Amino acid sequence: MSTREPSMVDEGLELLTEEDCGGLLVTARVGRVGVTVGGLPAILPVNYAFLNGDVFFRTGDGTKFRAASGGAVIAFEVDAYDEGEQHGWSVLAIGRAEVVTDPAEIADVDESVRTPWAGGQRNYLVRLRPELMTGRRIVRA
Amino acid sequence: MSTREPSMVDEGLELLTEEDCGGLLVTARVGRVGVTVGGLPAILPVNYAFLNGDVFFRTGDGTKFRAASGGAVIAFEVDAYDEGEQHGWSVLAIGRAEVVTDPAEIADVDESVRTPWAGGQRNYLVRLRPELMTGRRIVRA
Repeated sequence: MSTREPSMVDEGLELLTEEDCGGLLVTARVGRVGVTVGGLPAILPVNYAFLNGDVFFRTGDGTKFRAASGGAVIAFEVDAYDEGEQHGWSVLAIGRAEVVTDPAEIADVDESVRTPWAGGQRNYLVRLRPELMTGRRIVRA
Repeated sequence: MSTREPSMVDEGLELLTEEDCGGLLVTARVGRVGVTVGGLPAILPVNYAFLNGDVFFRTGDGTKFRAASGGAVIAFEVDAYDEGEQHGWSVLAIGRAEVVTDPAEIADVDESVRTPWAGGQRNYLVRLRPELMTGRRIVRA
């Protein structure tokens, strides 16, 4: 985490740089994918890895797979909060999802993507290459 | 939390009843709102209250306010995880957002909605009346 002064504050939230965001994404393991299903928004948690600037997560052949195989633009969010201190941060990455099919690439990535916590078949590896990455940190008065 | 046997398991995830979901929503304070901004999905954290079946959160006049004042259908998600145990749950509520303007209703709700953790002007109270509420809990093998 950078110790420099925040450069911008938006409604009590410090706006983070893309570098800050990347630094925070490697510290967490659970994020949330935002997709549109039948015209309705949905938010679904995933465990993920952040590698070389991309977000990777596994999925079965459900909602997230359909979004990824269709090349949909998805949102990915990670946050962390301290309820006692009432501070925290959030990072939002937006980009096109794609199913990774190249075996060599899967092998590279695979061992870094943790085994999904839930059991069941999650045979597909999805990559989100962020086209937009923003982050906010709560600034206490 | 119910101790009865899970009735349905979806890819290693126990599907929760709406009653279970409501019981979990009152245990947490931070959730995430999923909206569409300029055709792109976004996920934004909020601190919230769950009262009489509705989700309430405060917002300034930005993205979430625009969604609510336009009566957009939004997604709201809450989850909790234990990284050591690799278990957890998530609840997803979907419904139309609306800005609460009736002063009597605001007065009723207000004291239960916590002061937003971030400073700044968050003058609007938004209600999400869930039309669809689903939840999942990780079932370890």
